[in-house]
Amino acid sequence: MNNAYNYNLSANTQLTQKSVNRCFNGEQHYYTHQSAATKTPMTFSIYLPDEALAGQLCPAILYLSGLTCDADNVTHKAHFQQRCSELGMIFIAPDTSPRSSEENTVPNDERYFVGQGASYYVDATCTPWSEHFNMQSYMVDELYDLLRSEFTISSIGIMGHSMGGHGALLLGFKFPSKFVSVSALSPVCAASESAWGQAAYTEYFGDDKAQWAQADAAQMIESVGQQYTSILVDQGAADNFLAEGQLQTPKLQQACEKAKQPLTLRYQAGHDHSYYFIQTVINDHIEHHWRMANLN
Amino acid sequence: MNNAYNYNLSANTQLTQKSVNRCFNGEQHYYTHQSAATKTPMTFSIYLPDEALAGQLCPAILYLSGLTCDADNVTHKAHFQQRCSELGMIFIAPDTSPRSSEENTVPNDERYFVGQGASYYVDATCTPWSEHFNMQSYMVDELYDLLRSEFTISSIGIMGHSMGGHGALLLGFKFPSKFVSVSALSPVCAASESAWGQAAYTEYFGDDKAQWAQADAAQMIESVGQQYTSILVDQGAADNFLAEGQLQTPKLQQACEKAKQPLTLRYQAGHDHSYYFIQTVINDHIEHHWRMANLN
Repeated sequence: MNNAYNYNLSANTQLTQKSVNRCFNGEQHYYTHQSAATKTPMTFSIYLPDEALAGQLCPAILYLSGLTCDADNVTHKAHFQQRCSELGMIFIAPDTSPRSSEENTVPNDERYFVGQGASYYVDATCTPWSEHFNMQSYMVDELYDLLRSEFTISSIGIMGHSMGGHGALLLGFKFPSKFVSVSALSPVCAASESAWGQAAYTEYFGDDKAQWAQADAAQMIESVGQQYTSILVDQGAADNFLAEGQLQTPKLQQACEKAKQPLTLRYQAGHDHSYYFIQTVINDHIEHHWRMANLN
Repeated sequence: MNNAYNYNLSANTQLTQKSVNRCFNGEQHYYTHQSAATKTPMTFSIYLPDEALAGQLCPAILYLSGLTCDADNVTHKAHFQQRCSELGMIFIAPDTSPRSSEENTVPNDERYFVGQGASYYVDATCTPWSEHFNMQSYMVDELYDLLRSEFTISSIGIMGHSMGGHGALLLGFKFPSKFVSVSALSPVCAASESAWGQAAYTEYFGDDKAQWAQADAAQMIESVGQQYTSILVDQGAADNFLAEGQLQTPKLQQACEKAKQPLTLRYQAGHDHSYYFIQTVINDHIEHHWRMANLN
């Protein structure tokens, strides 16, 4: 490990540093900690530009990944480090769910869109999920507070991809006092109207449609109204999940219209759902969050 | 697959297209083909900017990866696509060795620095390696000709990382009529003086030190003299393999001085041997090859 700055965690830190790699003018770190919300160890990556390593306050992006991913996919494949280095932004990539470990057995499902790798960033209320699948609380309370206490963060914007795009839209509008900006890449826009989301919410919430409504991004936006100066969403026009109806992108547009929430929605010709698409547009998202952070 | 341009291979093509993903203003393709040099199927990735997809001649970079890698690592983690899209450059990433498949059993070694994933881009002369491990012929003859016949390539520069950096320096100076530019990231600079290279060359060439000399980058540069306007090499100053003596970077500097070969050698503070380092400097290398291609 080559930690040029010997970044100092707090004296009573809950974090264990797993790796440090210099990248552009900053460092890519990985940490693990024992989560009270999920009752499991959780891992996240954090990119710290030199300004943050030197103790200056920097705006941060909390990035929620999509189905099947963990912290590695976006950290290895999205190429956020260069622009974050240039602008002096922190970029945090948590895992997508609790997972089984030596200490814990966490429930799972053979379908890739339910269970481990597929938390939807909600607090499940049905057994067996409710014991560990409390990723809403993990994100907006536990990890949120931990990040603000251990790193020099001036403000946090939230973004995500696919299932994580739904999480970013949902949590951004459900907890607008926590976040200064919202954006999404190829998001599931209305989980309760997507076959993926329906399968997951049936497990996590049963038949209680009031809970489904509280966990649906488009319904949340429509019910709370405008919260941000603008939000940015990019969608590949050749994304097979768009054609299959998993993403329900028009529902987001309708919700934002009803909420009078300014939305920049861009359909990108020829692009699919992959990290090749994510890396194509991520700099625009980093710049969106940077501009919004500087409005505050 | 979203092949907006329906790129046309030749009528009698040996290539099988495995995937297409749009990325920036271009497409990331993967191909396989049956290699005569290695007597195995071989896989490579190729990034084609829209200019190439539309049939215009573009300069290309042939990128040789390091130990343990295949075509995926650099394609997923190095983030060359953005600058190649901006400049209109083609980027080709072959595998690092022949590999066992359904049709073939290729020799291997339990050491990660010998055998599959560790060809050193030479033609082995000792059994059992000589049957398949002919990666020099594969790169400079077979794949080279195949690329020029199937894609609209105006010129080819060669670069690589670690073991692949050695391959780029070696092949660039051994076959200067084939390449218009050379650069390397964290290269092994003198395989015959690195413990990794000694182990591999003992297997591939036995005790014949004349063959070792013909497969040593620093000795090759010294023996053939200046071939390029300049070459660019980046090295992480905190790279543990540098400290261990695997890279022998001063030997490259000495060889270039003796050869009167202009060398820009940059030690980058705090950086290690990883893809986090590669992505930090790869744009400078793409621009180097672009400038050299435009000199010709």
